[in-house]
Order: sequence, then structure tokens, then C-alpha cells
Amino acid sequence: MAAKVTGLNYRLLRMPPNVLLICTDQQRFSALGAAGNEEIDTPNLDRLASQGVLFENCYVQSPVCAPSRASLMTGRYVHQHGLWANGVGLPDHERLFSKDLADAGYDCGLVGKFHLNACFGGRSEVRHDDGFRVFRWAHDPYPGSSENEYHRWLYTVRPDLAGADLDYDSLPAEIHYSRWIGEQTIDFLTRSRDRSKPFFFVANFFDPHHGFGAPEEYVRRYRERELSRPIPDALSGKPPIQTEASHESYAGHARGFTTYSPDELQEVKAAYYAMVTLVDDEVGRILDALDTEGLAEDTLVVFTSDHGEMLGDHELMLKGPMLYEQAVRVPLLLRWPSTIPAGTRRTDLVQWIDLSATILTAAGLTPHGEGQDLLQPSSRGWALCEYRNSGHPYADPVHLTMLRRDRWKLIVQHASRTRPRTGELYDLTADPSELHNLWDDPLHRDIRTDLQESLLDTLVATENRTQPRLADW
Amino acid sequence: MAAKVTGLNYRLLRMPPNVLLICTDQQRFSALGAAGNEEIDTPNLDRLASQGVLFENCYVQSPVCAPSRASLMTGRYVHQHGLWANGVGLPDHERLFSKDLADAGYDCGLVGKFHLNACFGGRSEVRHDDGFRVFRWAHDPYPGSSENEYHRWLYTVRPDLAGADLDYDSLPAEIHYSRWIGEQTIDFLTRSRDRSKPFFFVANFFDPHHGFGAPEEYVRRYRERELSRPIPDALSGKPPIQTEASHESYAGHARGFTTYSPDELQEVKAAYYAMVTLVDDEVGRILDALDTEGLAEDTLVVFTSDHGEMLGDHELMLKGPMLYEQAVRVPLLLRWPSTIPAGTRRTDLVQWIDLSATILTAAGLTPHGEGQDLLQPSSRGWALCEYRNSGHPYADPVHLTMLRRDRWKLIVQHASRTRPRTGELYDLTADPSELHNLWDDPLHRDIRTDLQESLLDTLVATENRTQPRLADW
Amino acid sequence: MAAKVTGLNYRLLRMPPNVLLICTDQQRFSALGAAGNEEIDTPNLDRLASQGVLFENCYVQSPVCAPSRASLMTGRYVHQHGLWANGVGLPDHERLFSKDLADAGYDCGLVGKFHLNACFGGRSEVRHDDGFRVFRWAHDPYPGSSENEYHRWLYTVRPDLAGADLDYDSLPAEIHYSRWIGEQTIDFLTRSRDRSKPFFFVANFFDPHHGFGAPEEYVRRYRERELSRPIPDALSGKPPIQTEASHESYAGHARGFTTYSPDELQEVKAAYYAMVTLVDDEVGRILDALDTEGLAEDTLVVFTSDHGEMLGDHELMLKGPMLYEQAVRVPLLLRWPSTIPAGTRRTDLVQWIDLSATILTAAGLTPHGEGQDLLQPSSRGWALCEYRNSGHPYADPVHLTMLRRDRWKLIVQHASRTRPRTGELYDLTADPSELHNLWDDPLHRDIRTDLQESLLDTLVATENRTQPRLADW
Amino acid sequence: MAAKVTGLNYRLLRMPPNVLLICTDQQRFSALGAAGNEEIDTPNLDRLASQGVLFENCYVQSPVCAPSRASLMTGRYVHQHGLWANGVGLPDHERLFSKDLADAGYDCGLVGKFHLNACFGGRSEVRHDDGFRVFRWAHDPYPGSSENEYHRWLYTVRPDLAGADLDYDSLPAEIHYSRWIGEQTIDFLTRSRDRSKPFFFVANFFDPHHGFGAPEEYVRRYRERELSRPIPDALSGKPPIQTEASHESYAGHARGFTTYSPDELQEVKAAYYAMVTLVDDEVGRILDALDTEGLAEDTLVVFTSDHGEMLGDHELMLKGPMLYEQAVRVPLLLRWPSTIPAGTRRTDLVQWIDLSATILTAAGLTPHGEGQDLLQPSSRGWALCEYRNSGHPYADPVHLTMLRRDRWKLIVQHASRTRPRTGELYDLTADPSELHNLWDDPLHRDIRTDLQESLLDTLVATENRTQPRLADW
Repeated sequence: MAAKVTGLNYRLLRMPPNVLLICTDQQRFSALGAAGNEEIDTPNLDRLASQGVLFENCYVQSPVCAPSRASLMTGRYVHQHGLWANGVGLPDHERLFSKDLADAGYDCGLVGKFHLNACFGGRSEVRHDDGFRVFRWAHDPYPGSSENEYHRWLYTVRPDLAGADLDYDSLPAEIHYSRWIGEQTIDFLTRSRDRSKPFFFVANFFDPHHGFGAPEEYVRRYRERELSRPIPDALSGKPPIQTEASHESYAGHARGFTTYSPDELQEVKAAYYAMVTLVDDEVGRILDALDTEGLAEDTLVVFTSDHGEMLGDHELMLKGPMLYEQAVRVPLLLRWPSTIPAGTRRTDLVQWIDLSATILTAAGLTPHGEGQDLLQPSSRGWALCEYRNSGHPYADPVHLTMLRRDRWKLIVQHASRTRPRTGELYDLTADPSELHNLWDDPLHRDIRTDLQESLLDTLVATENRTQPRLADW
Repeated sequence: MAAKVTGLNYRLLRMPPNVLLICTDQQRFSALGAAGNEEIDTPNLDRLASQGVLFENCYVQSPVCAPSRASLMTGRYVHQHGLWANGVGLPDHERLFSKDLADAGYDCGLVGKFHLNACFGGRSEVRHDDGFRVFRWAHDPYPGSSENEYHRWLYTVRPDLAGADLDYDSLPAEIHYSRWIGEQTIDFLTRSRDRSKPFFFVANFFDPHHGFGAPEEYVRRYRERELSRPIPDALSGKPPIQTEASHESYAGHARGFTTYSPDELQEVKAAYYAMVTLVDDEVGRILDALDTEGLAEDTLVVFTSDHGEMLGDHELMLKGPMLYEQAVRVPLLLRWPSTIPAGTRRTDLVQWIDLSATILTAAGLTPHGEGQDLLQPSSRGWALCEYRNSGHPYADPVHLTMLRRDRWKLIVQHASRTRPRTGELYDLTADPSELHNLWDDPLHRDIRTDLQESLLDTLVATENRTQPRLADW
Repeated sequence: MAAKVTGLNYRLLRMPPNVLLICTDQQRFSALGAAGNEEIDTPNLDRLASQGVLFENCYVQSPVCAPSRASLMTGRYVHQHGLWANGVGLPDHERLFSKDLADAGYDCGLVGKFHLNACFGGRSEVRHDDGFRVFRWAHDPYPGSSENEYHRWLYTVRPDLAGADLDYDSLPAEIHYSRWIGEQTIDFLTRSRDRSKPFFFVANFFDPHHGFGAPEEYVRRYRERELSRPIPDALSGKPPIQTEASHESYAGHARGFTTYSPDELQEVKAAYYAMVTLVDDEVGRILDALDTEGLAEDTLVVFTSDHGEMLGDHELMLKGPMLYEQAVRVPLLLRWPSTIPAGTRRTDLVQWIDLSATILTAAGLTPHGEGQDLLQPSSRGWALCEYRNSGHPYADPVHLTMLRRDRWKLIVQHASRTRPRTGELYDLTADPSELHNLWDDPLHRDIRTDLQESLLDTLVATENRTQPRLADW
Repeated sequence: MAAKVTGLNYRLLRMPPNVLLICTDQQRFSALGAAGNEEIDTPNLDRLASQGVLFENCYVQSPVCAPSRASLMTGRYVHQHGLWANGVGLPDHERLFSKDLADAGYDCGLVGKFHLNACFGGRSEVRHDDGFRVFRWAHDPYPGSSENEYHRWLYTVRPDLAGADLDYDSLPAEIHYSRWIGEQTIDFLTRSRDRSKPFFFVANFFDPHHGFGAPEEYVRRYRERELSRPIPDALSGKPPIQTEASHESYAGHARGFTTYSPDELQEVKAAYYAMVTLVDDEVGRILDALDTEGLAEDTLVVFTSDHGEMLGDHELMLKGPMLYEQAVRVPLLLRWPSTIPAGTRRTDLVQWIDLSATILTAAGLTPHGEGQDLLQPSSRGWALCEYRNSGHPYADPVHLTMLRRDRWKLIVQHASRTRPRTGELYDLTADPSELHNLWDDPLHRDIRTDLQESLLDTLVATENRTQPRLADW
């Protein structure tokens, strides 16, 4: 059921709220207690959910980082903003909503990764005209760019570790990348922000991204439990790229599912959950800081993730050319005490691009891009996700387009030089685990055609027509 | 059959050629003697065809001016360059191939219309960073912008006409807009060009665009003939927007077909042909100037048009949300004596965006955009045309997408608020006149589905992915 | 005595006025009937003077075209705007006051030369971001750039003249460059302007610039008179560069004074006066058009010139490294019936840069640059003129700086590789013809020192300090 | 005597060198052992001097930070680059030589202050297009901008200090701002630099800038010595602004000399020397790191300071509208073993702007700006220094211009609203302490005039004429 939202026009009646956007990396929807997962510990996120609204059907616009994050920051689909893959830079003329907020008087800050430009191989990410005054950048916890601020912090706190060969994923919590995110966020809230302005702060965690490691005390909590096994799927009737990916993840750059033993898979899940719980603890500390600063009431808090993780389901690991729910549906929590009734759950289909529209509207600004204000019931009725050889690149590019509509999920794998056109069609009501691909099922021929027509129309409807019409000719 | 093209790599062996691009406005493919039209007099264009290559299947990327011309100048589809309708400006970051040529040392000039920005209501077109040193702009022959250079020429030649209420279409040839185009082109070739450089010159005629008038001596030649009647079509089984358009052209801003008497229609055709013949005479004078200047051998001459004209066929006038061959197939002639064998005819499907690729390649430069070098056999096998409420705007926007492939032409009319989704499907082999719409024909259900899938894949394949991939992530 | 200016704040009480700026090239102050010259016929300019205010002591900021005109358009001194010589382009970041007017809603137009970039050798002048919608450019009447609009007009009116070897200076009035300026100005006033906006129009005449020719009927009027002889000056005690220049004008690119016979000099003066009278006739026609259009009351008309002409005085021709009154003092007339009392004469020292401040203030805008509103009494008390090898270049650069203050004129010729430092000092009260150079006069040592100190302080006071101070550090 | 420089063209014969530019803040020339100061301990700087060249007469272009540093980075005088005072931003179109180096393939880094834009009141300095990949910014050691990286380091190392009310000047050496500079520099040399490229690194110390505090162990060394007393000067015959400044430094924002007791002045000097020695230790560590990395041979090391400090001499403290040697002459050491003979001393007049020319030349690039390659004997013979109300602003702006030439130093104080024109003239041979102002001395009238003429000519010679001359007109 949809959230009751206030009928008041908060754009006129009050000061613009602060906005705190907490974003994890690779956290699937189900990796959240409030989502019904009884195996995982996320008490702080669950508290956030109980104080605000939880969206059960939020889809990202791409199953990999950079294109997805570019959609978040621009409010536009991948085919609109043009950052079509990891390692591709956002075009200079694209406008970020953080820049809008900065221009409107917000003090804007960010900690962690950003990923609107190439970061591979030690590159320091080139900045866009992004409006952030505070920009404490570290793409990830691993060595690479010398300008990774996490490392400079780490080696400052622990100069003895400089030059050591570390397992960054498993560092103790007090020097972990996720702790650094929490620390910097709290520093901003309590010290670094410009108190003469409302703030917009982005805390971009790297967890629960693989490598699958976490501080030992977190991993131990899960290693000792009997965690559920992955959803088995022989991948028969599925596009061959999935079988390929089950053997080799990341276009061959990472171990595939089939190389893991069952025990290893459970270790991976334990570590994954441990990372989420580590983040959850930091979120708790951040929320506490908001309370202590007296900011909770006037701050719109958003918690979400940039895409999911297969975690062995369907015999797949990580992410890539697969658009299962595990990969493309993400947690989305909003808390804004004065405006959003506590404990709301929303089941309508929403999308990641809706966040910029929601935040700009809350700030009294006019959204641009394709998003809709999440504080109003969604009128869209579908969700779009695009993969354009967007992850580790396949030599013969793989392009997938997903349309989620009603009970259906259609995924088209467009033809490439060596791979014939194929696709997937799932009835999420009858088959929520997406085990039965109906793409070639004669009984579902009409709905497949209908959905492809819908998809065609959707792509046309969302073409880049931002240039204004000034005259009849 | 495809043209024999030389195997020599002209990019290495010789000086870059001059390029003369002659472009008319609203001239359909059939309005050309060399195309098999025995009613029309185009001796100079026919001569050009006999000296070079005639493309029998060249499609424009939009059936209206500005989006089509933006595709010509950028080498990109409408959904890529973003100038989606007349009255919309080309985004600043789009790059024109004229700028490439200028940067490479070409002396670039243009006379006539350009139409990469709004011109309605007397607007002087704002210039892009286009590279033209010579830019003698006049959107059309009608009063409007005071900076219309044709008018300043006209009132200079004939000051007695200043302020008079003139029928600009029917002015005598010696002061007609088309003569002005010819004069300025010849002026460039013989006087104004920078002789230290190769040139790129664009002669953008406004004829045979409606108003349907021409100098009396030209009209008379056709009025006295028995011209063929329009192709009748009750438009049953066709999308309702066509019936609407048959009553009111230009979204209600111009007379529709049904308001014309049969005699009037023949008058219109006579005037239309007269305009083409007027242009043909100017082309003859221009070709003579090339000969006189000794430039013919080293000059790539291109003749084409930005879209067609219904001329009463299918009970439709002008252009708009209709993608019949009359509207979207245009003349395309190339002459380059040293490289293109005389008298070639090509039947492969080519597109307007191929022109920039052809010209840049001829100039020894690297094409960007989606075009292919027309001097090589086309490997594409399809053509795309897009209408995005691109003409006079309908309040409820009309969006059409056409895919031409093999013998088939598919046209999807995407759903709008008040108009349900519909479409057209023609078998151009069996039904070259496009009288029988097979869209809802159960026997053609599979090919319709197949073509829509092709179209979907084509749109995805041609998304804007110009940003380079710099790294794996 | 200073003009009485109204005490009303016209910035608040009424609509911004139209502005018509008429500017000649190389017209010295004395070449004006209203300036007391009884030999010359300028009835229309005299009428303008009688209807407004005549400034008797207006100095330009440079004695040659481009630097002077850059000062006009930017309101800044030559050492500030950086266009230090003819053939040098204005830096992109300099702001023109025409752009301010355009941004504030003025319809801006220009006819004739502009000269903010190199034009030599047939160059088409590259445009600055100048705000002009109408821009009908012709650097001069001579063949050169094919984009010279005067020529295109001329050969359109008289196609028989195309290719002919013409004496452009002496063409009949009806096809003369000055007539073209008048025609285009009247066209703007009566037809081309956007009537929904106030206008700013610049009519940039080339006359009375040398070559010394004019339509025969104009020259004849003066040839038949006994015109005064040049002011003789043996140039003893003057800087040697003047003697050099008396033999060869334009750094050797034009005939020097000493190559003219006395009769030739009278011919030159007759031609020069004839050019002024030709301009005067066009000004009359323009003023008539203002009247006819009912615009006279609400239009601020400015008449001025970009620098003067030696015309044989001091045995010098043309302009260059000499800063006599003939070279640097120019006519300046303002007419604005509602605001400026008719028949005013002002003797205070004003400068060309004051024009932009005056016009922007009249338009209700905030001036930038160094100018002062001429409608208020001047508080400056001095004038500055700079020559930085600004004319035809000397191989060993010649740099002069002039300070006019009280009765004194100081001119410093800065040392160069081959030319020792020298200078001039004139007492304009005792020696209005500047015959006695007091630079080395022991009795004027103190005043020379004092003036040099003033000049030093003036250069420091007018350094480029446009960057705002944001904070104490 | 001038350095012997190699006759080899190192631009052609070898790889471009690394460049390490170490710059202190407010260190006068005499605060250096190698300069002959026997009271101060600078063994590492003395070692550097003995290994390279020491310039005894290097003048900065402004006696305050931001204008001086803008001259360093642009190679241009204050009146050229337009950053005329602290708190003023460098115009966007000015080009930094670091950008040239970056474009040429250098890996560029900086630690410490930069000061090309306003930093007062907690502002985070807006960055220019500066080319630095590594940019670890901290304007000074004091709380202010949250983005001060020194503070983030400090509170990371010592979280217990966060929020404490600290005396940042006197923090222990291991957490002192100067140590942080040393640490980051060594980090760059040993870890953060891109080893595939030559580097350019700038280490911008804040010491020995006031507040006058240093780690206790450094201060103690000097407190226990008998340090020389300030140079007394009753300031009679000096411009009144100096007497004003002796009572109140910093335009009234800091204590003046007259408020200090003699003992306090000795404490100040002890602290000042202590700061220099603290820096010296860090320089030693940096030089050691160069040695350890094997970089010493191929690295051009520069040590200098942005301006001096009065330190009680002439009854003046700090800096401001006073251009004594203490304020404007700075240490300048260059070491480049392969090119500069060890132990060289140069007495010719050089300027801070010469550094960019020297470094660009060493890198094989073409210098722009006004500087000269210091590896060649200087041919200029003078030095210029400008104060344009550049420090803490006086309500009635104070403008000073200094010309140093031969044995003379001329300082003009330009007239302002309330302060008459005045000046200073010193014979540095006869009066090296600048005690006797000869400005009004009748016996030095001629030399004063001569120097003012020189200054006038120098300002004209160094006007901004960077726009190229493209043609004669």
C-alpha cells in the first residue's frame, strides 16, 4: 500500500531540509532485516525503516556501479546520460543534482566513492562540476590512487601499516574503510559542515562489495549460523551468457560460481552479511550523531544501494550480464519525520532515478531528468534497467535491456556478433525466484510480444529530448 | 547493383577534394528525371546522375527539416543528436562535420537556410560553432528576420520592391530566392573562396518547398501538360492520424488534401515540378561555373534533399506524421570524376547520415557519428527514420519510428495520451505504393513482431555511447 | 562651461532610451563646422550640435583604430583591455558594453567596420561575443574579405562593376561606402529593428579615412575654394621619430608629407573635407529617418570619431607615433532632447571611454570600466592616450604615452633598442599649435617632472584591478 | 659573481628533470645561515646552498602572499596577472606554469597553502585549472575551513586533540604543520608519485609566518641565546604610513611594534628563528628522502620564500605597506647537481617571476610571462615590487611601487584621498640599512627623477601585451 503523504506544500511552508544520502555498494534488497530476511542483523536499518518508509520494489537503472550512480546523480536513464559502462566518464554537459543543491545554497559534501569517471588502475577520479565543497574521495579500500583519502587516513592512524601487505577487507573495524565512512560522515555532521546552510551529504560505503571479507568479529557472527543455501538453478532455458558467467564471473576476471565449494559459498554469504552488519553499525552511529546534533527532525535520510549481488543464486556470483531481482532490486528507505509517516511500506514500482526528483522537490527546487517524487504515489507502473557491456567488458559486447511491468519481467539480450538474440521472461507472481524462463514458451508468445512493444515504446518515450522547443520551426 | 568503387586509397594518394553539397528542401525521390519521372524536366540533375552515381534508396533520418538537417551535419540519428523537432536548437556540444573540415584547413561556406536552431517568427538563427567562414543565411524567401540575406539582396537589386506585398514564390527567376542561391554559390566558386585551401560549400535551396509557386515561365511549362494524378488512398486501415492530416496539414496550420479540388492538385504539382526545374537550371549554372573554373575534376559534388513531399498521394499534402516513400526517400547523386565511375546506380539502402562519413573520408579525415562511406558498398541493410512530434506540434505529441529492412517497411506510432498505439507495415515488393497496411494482418503477425524486435535492437544499437571507455572500471 | 543636466534620475523614471552611435574614422576635432571651422560644410552635424551638447576636449585613448575602438567598446584603457595595436585581437574575456545592452533587452545592430580583431590582408574579422543581432560588416570600402557586405551590396546594385578595377574612394555617392552605411542605418531604423525592444545601433563610417578620395561632386566643392594651408613646423626640438614620419608615413608603408607638393596637400584637404561632408549628408538622412519614425525624442544620438588625422600639419600625414591635437582630439556630440539642454558646449577634459559609461547609465545599467557619465560634469581633470607601436609596426617598437592635464600636454616616448628616451611637453594655453616642445627646456623642468609623476600615478591608478576583493586574505 | 652555467643545451640532451619547489612563508633573506646570519641554525639549507647556487639579490613581486604567489605561478607581475591583493582570486584566464608541466607529462603535486584565491574566514580555496593531480591543501595551521587537510591529519593522528583549544604554532614537532608538510612531501617522493613520469612537487610551508610560536624545543634553543636587537629607526623622514604601521600592524588588525617591550621583541625573534630551524629540519628530511630514492641527481631543488618579515627592524613588524629589504628580498637556492656548479653565489638582481621561466626551460618547455632563466646570467638589471593595498586593506587604499636599480631603491607611494604622494629613495651602497630617505633630498633630486622615469618606462614596458599581433591591421 502507498504511503500517506502530507497534503501540505512543504515547498512553501518551511525551510529546506537537510539531506543525508547513505548508499552502499552491491547490497541486494534481500540483504536487509526489514525486507524479511531473518538471517541478517541490521537493527539500525530496521529502525530507520520503522521510522520512515520502505520501498519493496525499487529498481536501479543499471546492474553495475558507474552507470547506476550516474543515473542517481543525473536523474536520467543510462541511454540518456551516456555513462554506459564502468570506466566511462560522464559527459561534461550532464548536470548533477548536487550542483543544483549547491547553487541553491546547500553545503554539499561526500565521502567514499563517486565513480562518475574511470578509476581503474590507480586513477584518481577526475571531478565533474559536482557542487561538493567537501569531497573526501576513496574509490575503495584497496591500494591504487595515492589520493585515496581512506589510505591516507589509515596510514596516518596506523603508520606501522604503511607498506604492509594488508587484507583491507578484513581489517579491524576501528580502521576499516566502512568505519572511515562513518567517521567522516559524523565529522561532517558535527564539525565540518557550514552551519549557515542546509546540508546535503552523501556517505558512499564500499561494503558489501566483494572481496568477501569483513572484520573477524562480524564474520564470526554469521559463520557460526546455519545460513540458507543459494537458490539452485541449472540455467537450462536461460541465455547461454549466464552459464558462461557461472563459470567465470566478471567476463573472466573473477572466479565463477562453479569454482566454489558449497562450504565456500556459505563463507561468502557469511562475509557478505557481515559487511552489511558492519555498515549497519556505522549507520547507527551516524543516526545517533544526527540525534545528538538535533538534526533528525529536519533531515531527510535516504538509505539505498547502487545494485545487488547474485551471491550464488542461479549459480551466479557478483554482477554482470544478469538482471535477476538479486542484481537489480535494492533497499530503499526514506526517513523524514515531519513529512513521512513512520512505518510505511510501499510496493509500487519505483526507480533509482526517482531519488534526485524527490530530493530536489524536498529542497523546493524543480527536478529535471525523468524521476518522480517518491513522496507522491508512483504513476509510472514500470521500471527499466540497462546493461551495455557495462561491467568487465566482453570482447563481443553484451547488451541487455529489462522492462519490469505488472507481474512480468522481460529481459532482451540484443544480438551481437557471436551471440544470437535471446531473452528472458518471468512471471514474478507465479515464479518469484525467476526459475522458469518463458521467453520461448509458445503460451507466452503474446505477452512477450506485448512487453517488447512496451519496451520499444518506453525507449522512445525516454529518448533524450531535453532541448526545449522554442518555436513551431 | 552496387557501384564499382576504386580500390585505391585516395586518402593517401592525393590532395583532399573540394566538396560542393547542393541540397534542396522537400524534394521527393521521384521528383527527378533520372529517377524515372518522365513528366519532370531536370536535365542538369540528370547530367549529374549520368556523370556519377544515383542512389535509388536513400532515406532521411526525419521527415521534417531541422531534425533531418541536424542528422546530416552531425552524422547521427535524431535520438542521438537531440534536435528532435523543428524549433529546437542543436545542443552546443554536438559537433558538425563542417567544423571538422574547417579545422582540417577547408574554406567552408554556406548559402541559404541552415535550420539547426529555431527560425520561426522572424528569429535570426543563432549560429552553432559550425566552421563556416562564409555564411550567407536566409531561412526562406519570406519576410521574417531582417537578417535574411536574400531579402537584403532582393531589395538592393530592386529597391522598388521594398515594402511591397510580394508573392515571393512567384517572383521572376532573375530575382527569385533560387536564383540568389545560384548566384551566391557561383560567387563563392569564382570570387569569394580562399584559393589557398580546398573548399566545402553548401548550397541550401528552399525550393521545392511549399508555398506552391514558381516563376511564371516555369509554371507554364507544366500547367500545359497532362500530369499524372495523385495516388488515391482512402486511408482505410491506416492510422487515424493520417485521415486527420488529410483534412488539415501541419497539425491544422495548413490546408489539408481534402480542401483541394482535383484541378488545384494538378496546379500544385505543376508548381512543384516548376520549382524543381528552376533549381535544376541553377544547378546547371553552378556546374558550368565549376567547369569554367577548372574545378570539376577535383570536386565531389553531392545533390540531395532533406525530405520529401506527399503532393496529394495517399490524400496527403506536405509532410508531417506520415512516413511514406514520398516523404522519406530522397534524391542522392554524387559526382567525383576521378573516383566514381560515371553512370552508376546503387540500390542498396543508404541513409542521409552517410553523407558526412563519405565527405570526411574523402577529405582524409576520420568520420565520427553513425554514417558509412557511400563510396563503399553499404553493409547496414536497413534505414531508420524518426518523427518526434517534429513538425508543427500536435498538442498530444505524435511519435513515429520507421524501420526499412529488406522488402519491408515498419512504422510504429507510439501511444500517446489520446491516441492508442498503432502502426503500419508494408511489403514494398508486393505493394510499392504502400496502399495495404499489414500491421493488423494476422498473416503478417510474425514479420511485424520480427521487425519490431529489429527496431528495438536497432534503437539500442544506436544509443548515444560516444563517451570512450577508458578502463575496465 | 559644463552642461546643465537634469537633476532627475532618469534611470528610474522612464523607459530606457534608444541609442544611435555614429562614428567616423580619422576625423579630427577641427573637421567640423560647429568646432569653428568655417571652411568645412557640416550643416547636419552642426544641427546636431545645436540640439545637444558639443564636447570641445574629448580625447581618444589611442591614435589608431583598433586600440581606440576597443577602449570605446570596453570602457577601458589600452593597457587594461590588451588590444594594444591594430592587427591584435581583443582577449575573449573582455566584455563589450553592447553585450550588456543586449543582455538587458536591447536590440543591437551595427553597420560598417568593427576592428576588434585583425582585418589585414582580406581577413574576415572574427567576432567577439558582442551582443549584436544585426551585424553588417565591412571593414572598409576596398576589396579584401569576400564577406565585406558593402561589396556584396555594391556588386548587387551594380553587377557591371564586379571585377572592375575601381577607385572605391571616388565612387558616385549613390554607391559609395558612406551611402551604404546610411542606407543600412536607415534600414535598421525603419525596417530591421525589433520594435518590441529599445535599440542600440552603431553606424561606423570609414570616411574620412584616407585614401583621399570622395565622390566628384563633393570634392569639387572644396577644390574650388581657397583652403587654409597646413601648420608649418620644422620639427626641430621634436622627437626624431616625427621627422622620420614626415618622410614616410605608416612606418614606411605610405607616402610621407615631404613627398607631397603644396598643391597636392590642398587636394588632400579638399578630399578630406569632401569625405566629411559626404558623411554629413548621410547623417542628415539618418536624422531625418529618426524624425520620420518619431524616434528623435527618445533616442540618445552620439556622433564621434575614433581618432584624428594630421593632414599636413606639423609636416605630418595620417596618424602614427604622433599625439598632436589633430591626432587625438575628436568631435563628440550628444543629443537627447529630453535630457540634454540644446546648444550646450562643454570644455572639460573628457575621454572616449566615457561613452560606454554614459550609454549604460542612460540605459539604467551599471557601467563597468573606467569611464564617467558624460551627463554629469567630469571630475577627472586629465586624459590619457597610449601608442604601443600600435599603427603599422616599427621594427624597433615605438611606445608613446600622453597625459593631458590643465594647460599641459606631456608625451613620453619610452626608450627602445635604437631610440633613446625622449618626449614632448606643450603649454596649450601659450602654444595651442604645439610648436614649441618644452621637454628639454630647463625652465620647464619642474613641470615636466611633475607631469611624469602624475603620469606614473595615473598608470598605477588605472591598472587592471577588476578582480573583486572577496576577503581580507 | 655570476654562476658558471653549462654551455650544453639540456633541453635537447636529456630527460626533463624532476622539480621540487620548497617555499616558506614570510622568511626574509637574512633568516638563513648561508646568507651570513650567524645567529640562526639552518644546516640543511646551508648544505643545499653549498651544493648549488645562492642568489643574494632575489626580490619578490609583492610583499604579501597572494599577489606574490600569483607572480610565482604565472611568471607575471602583479599589474599583469591581476591578483592585486590577498583575498582576490586569480582571473580564470591566467595560466599557471604547473598546468604547462602537467600538460607536458609531469606528475604535479602540492602540499600546504596555495593562496591564489580568498581563504579568509574558513573559506575552502576554490581551485584554478592548476594541473596538480595531488593537491593536499591546508592554507595554514589554524582552524578554519573543514577541508584543511592538516587538521584532518592532526585529528586523525591525535583524536584526543579534536575540539581542544590548541596553540597550533607551538604544537610538538611530531604533530606540527611543518612536520605535516615534510611528511606529505616525503610521502609523495616515496609513495604517491606516478613513477612513470617526471614530477613537479611544491612543498608550501606556512612557517616562519607569525603567530610567533614554534615547538618548545626549537624555541628554547634561541631563547637561551643573546640575539641581535632590531635595527632602530625613528622613521623621521619616512612616509607617515610607516609610523602608523609601527603602532598598528596589518592596518590595525595586529599589534604594532610600539606595543612590544624589548624583551618581547627578542622572544619574537627567537620564535621566528625557531620556526626557520623547524623548517630546516624538515628540509633535511626531504633531502634525505631524495637521496634515498636516488632522485637527487636528476631533481632541480628550489628553496625560496614568498616575502619577508620586518621583525622589529625600522620599528615595524610583519609586512604591509613597507618595502624594506627585510620585506622584499628573499632566500633563493637552486640545486641541480648535473647542471649547476656547487657552491655558486650570484649577486645579480633577480626576481621571483624568474622561477617559472627557469623551471619551464629546464623541463624543455617554452616559458611564457616575463621571467628569465636563472641558469643564465640575468640581463635585466632591475627589480619591481608592487603593493596595491594588498595586505589587510586600508580604508583609504595605499599603493606603493618599488624599483630597485643599481645601488638605488626607489619607492613611490602614490597619492590617495587622504594621503599625499610621497616616497622613499635609498642608496643601498652607502646606506644598506635604509635609514636615510633621500626622497626629498635636494642633492638627490636628479636621481629621484631619473628613477621615476625608469619606473614609468618599466611599467609601460611590462604592460599586458600578451595578445599576439596577427597582422599590420
